[in-house]
Amino acid sequence: MTIRIAIAGPRGRMGREAVALVQQTDHFELAAVIDRRYDGQNLAEIDGFSGVNAPIYTDAARCFAEVKPDVLIDLTTPEAGKRHTELALRYGVRPVVGTTGFTPEDIERLTKLAEEKEIGAIIAPNFAVGAVLMMKFARMAAKYFTDVEIIELHHDQKLDAPSGTALKTAQLIAEVRPSKKQGHPNEKETLAGARGAEYDGIPIHSVRLPGFVAHQEVIFGGNGQTLTIRHDSFDRRSFMSGVKLAVETVMHLHTLVYGLEHILE
Amino acid sequence: MTIRIAIAGPRGRMGREAVALVQQTDHFELAAVIDRRYDGQNLAEIDGFSGVNAPIYTDAARCFAEVKPDVLIDLTTPEAGKRHTELALRYGVRPVVGTTGFTPEDIERLTKLAEEKEIGAIIAPNFAVGAVLMMKFARMAAKYFTDVEIIELHHDQKLDAPSGTALKTAQLIAEVRPSKKQGHPNEKETLAGARGAEYDGIPIHSVRLPGFVAHQEVIFGGNGQTLTIRHDSFDRRSFMSGVKLAVETVMHLHTLVYGLEHILE
Amino acid sequence: MTIRIAIAGPRGRMGREAVALVQQTDHFELAAVIDRRYDGQNLAEIDGFSGVNAPIYTDAARCFAEVKPDVLIDLTTPEAGKRHTELALRYGVRPVVGTTGFTPEDIERLTKLAEEKEIGAIIAPNFAVGAVLMMKFARMAAKYFTDVEIIELHHDQKLDAPSGTALKTAQLIAEVRPSKKQGHPNEKETLAGARGAEYDGIPIHSVRLPGFVAHQEVIFGGNGQTLTIRHDSFDRRSFMSGVKLAVETVMHLHTLVYGLEHILE
Amino acid sequence: MTIRIAIAGPRGRMGREAVALVQQTDHFELAAVIDRRYDGQNLAEIDGFSGVNAPIYTDAARCFAEVKPDVLIDLTTPEAGKRHTELALRYGVRPVVGTTGFTPEDIERLTKLAEEKEIGAIIAPNFAVGAVLMMKFARMAAKYFTDVEIIELHHDQKLDAPSGTALKTAQLIAEVRPSKKQGHPNEKETLAGARGAEYDGIPIHSVRLPGFVAHQEVIFGGNGQTLTIRHDSFDRRSFMSGVKLAVETVMHLHTLVYGLEHILE
Repeated sequence: MTIRIAIAGPRGRMGREAVALVQQTDHFELAAVIDRRYDGQNLAEIDGFSGVNAPIYTDAARCFAEVKPDVLIDLTTPEAGKRHTELALRYGVRPVVGTTGFTPEDIERLTKLAEEKEIGAIIAPNFAVGAVLMMKFARMAAKYFTDVEIIELHHDQKLDAPSGTALKTAQLIAEVRPSKKQGHPNEKETLAGARGAEYDGIPIHSVRLPGFVAHQEVIFGGNGQTLTIRHDSFDRRSFMSGVKLAVETVMHLHTLVYGLEHILE
Repeated sequence: MTIRIAIAGPRGRMGREAVALVQQTDHFELAAVIDRRYDGQNLAEIDGFSGVNAPIYTDAARCFAEVKPDVLIDLTTPEAGKRHTELALRYGVRPVVGTTGFTPEDIERLTKLAEEKEIGAIIAPNFAVGAVLMMKFARMAAKYFTDVEIIELHHDQKLDAPSGTALKTAQLIAEVRPSKKQGHPNEKETLAGARGAEYDGIPIHSVRLPGFVAHQEVIFGGNGQTLTIRHDSFDRRSFMSGVKLAVETVMHLHTLVYGLEHILE
Repeated sequence: MTIRIAIAGPRGRMGREAVALVQQTDHFELAAVIDRRYDGQNLAEIDGFSGVNAPIYTDAARCFAEVKPDVLIDLTTPEAGKRHTELALRYGVRPVVGTTGFTPEDIERLTKLAEEKEIGAIIAPNFAVGAVLMMKFARMAAKYFTDVEIIELHHDQKLDAPSGTALKTAQLIAEVRPSKKQGHPNEKETLAGARGAEYDGIPIHSVRLPGFVAHQEVIFGGNGQTLTIRHDSFDRRSFMSGVKLAVETVMHLHTLVYGLEHILE
Repeated sequence: MTIRIAIAGPRGRMGREAVALVQQTDHFELAAVIDRRYDGQNLAEIDGFSGVNAPIYTDAARCFAEVKPDVLIDLTTPEAGKRHTELALRYGVRPVVGTTGFTPEDIERLTKLAEEKEIGAIIAPNFAVGAVLMMKFARMAAKYFTDVEIIELHHDQKLDAPSGTALKTAQLIAEVRPSKKQGHPNEKETLAGARGAEYDGIPIHSVRLPGFVAHQEVIFGGNGQTLTIRHDSFDRRSFMSGVKLAVETVMHLHTLVYGLEHILE
């Protein structure tokens, strides 16, 4: 069965990858795109999309009403993403959304709407399947290894340290292990910062070097052994396997799922 | 509650670690040891065990009858291990067994016996919690990443390649993914062996160098990303956390469990 | 002092990076480009180069005669590269060449020519400084560690295994250590290929997975320790630091140097 | 030619390894040992040394006078080491010393003494050849990659962070590269310490986990590439290859060398 898809934000960096994904997948069909500009034109006329036929809508509601896609892939902004998600559900279109900024209240309200309409919806801040599995495995391993440190390595244009993924990983670990001060009780930094940042007793180290893209290592230590889980993201195509999985999964859901980890077994 | 433990094979390399484990664990008590020699003596009299009081039995049945331990930790040989396991169950002692060589028929028979006696039993060829988690995670990741290679690295005194753990990992992965020939269809080895051994399409590479102890890396690759799970075993104490977990768990079981992975969540 | 540069092959993948390099480097100036097409036009008119002013020549000799650049960066094909190198030297232009296919006779003849003209020339099959340093360090370490294995990891579209860099590394190591069969004398492959390919006793393992770009690890093992040298190439910009270094160095040479390793201290 | 060796501190952890090294090396001979106790006895009578014949001296001077060894291996304490080194040189015995605590004045005075006596001497705070090569390579690479971070990983009983080796590595790098603030100028720690300690602009990260022994990674980053040099020390035998090399080298020296790096090419 072919899944008919509308993509919101086709000209963004992630949107372009999503268009390519739909083109390359046999049972996916690009039914329409939603864009702030070019209403009424065809995507094939836009620079960089020659040969990719799909009507362009600036009005999402009209797109859903006329085209009736099975799924909306939304890779726009937090505000537009929230608006599109609600509209899609009202029109019976299953949303797969990669934007952030949803509050717990938003999620609750949209979940009710999805259940009323009896269709699926997936909202995921991180679509990289490998990163999500890394976090899932780290949470599982923390039950058996109470000592753990996180090293995340990114290009040197990144402004914040530690990364959001490192913090998320530490939170997930903290949920399942008793809070613990690691290292020797008398350990001493002869240079401040050597032992890294700390989240609930878990040291986090941020490396920033040109050359790197986005990488993270979670290292668990126990008597005579270590267990390391590492994710390397080399380019943004790493997100597309998660988008594909979400599109295929959302067809069988009857509620809203927040976080890719909940559709990975 | 203190768990009273008998150890079979206390003078072997693993046995010595088990004795140390029991000594160091507050709620464990060394009730007796079973040894081929020194019947009737006390372990404290034996070289390397000064201060460790425990009666020595050469006859396992008599040990179980007189001492009535809660748990038997058996780290002997395949034959002795099999005999001790059956005897322990008959006497109502829960076996935690680290020897190999049990056939499916043995397991079936011993499982029936454990269920009749309504007590637990755990038989595990590998007690390194980290190695078992690595295999468990590899099996889970294989549902989402169909391309995977295994690199195992050991000291250069190891005779067989690939290692048993590498083969076991490949088997677990093969159970959950469709058989697949990896790499480019036209790939060519200009030096034979470069692409490694193959188990159901999964390449396995064995590194043997002085310095290494026992290490394994399972690398999954997908669009724009890789996910790596690595276990490093630095010395044989790595097995003891698994033995401890098994002793604690076996007290709450009413059947036989084969493989540590089945008691890890 | 500004170095005036002509680039041959500006529209290729490496050529585009070289154009960007020259644009971004204060003391470099793009004096002209040599291309099979567009003779007499300006590079700024060509798709993807808007704003980059440089006259286009299809005739390299005329380019050298009229523009008199200090340096030629050639990133074309083996045949064109060879022809351009000779022409450049005849016209007093220092060539920095990244194509392969030069025979020892070619190198000898071109070296004489460079020395007659008293100018420098650099021909390098690999301009990634990190990869060249990895090989250099591997050769140095092999004097102290006689056991070594090479693991190279590439995307799964690569056809040949092992990679050229892995073979080159093994050759360099073989030059400085006595030939040696590694591993245990009685070691046995239970699955053929597990111990990898072998070059003069050095095992080489080739991993091919989607996600990877171009990576190599050289692992030396000795009593109780290992030393690992790893190079990760994430994209083709990794070559540009070597091109920059070569351009700067070639200005001070009076002979031809083959291989970037000979200009790294 | 057999090298006749005296070992000071044979019962210490390193001393025991040195005794084993001498026993296992064909062209080495254990001529005597120097110990605080057991004067006049034979090493073979001491617990753990059965079969290892060598006279025990508590008086180093008398040992050198009577036994006339070629080389002294000293693995004692800073004070004893200093005293033994001077005595050895006076008696024409070449010292190979693994203790710390020599001041620049000590080194100067002992160097003069070695040159007067026209014999070699080697004092090295770190005998792990792999660690010394790692530092040497890091210093070399720093000429070509100006961005670098150091991650050192040790067992969680280590009290100080960063490790001495990490600091020494950073010092060596700082000698050859211009001082530089790395990372984005506007980078911000949302958790203090995430970016590690800093030595002359070089971030250093210290990981402390049970399971680890002593490991260090030096990562250089450049456009599109990273170069990593890693040393793993799994047990104290890693020092013995350096001791062996020093014993062999000291026979051919006519001065004092401080630091193993100066005898590695």
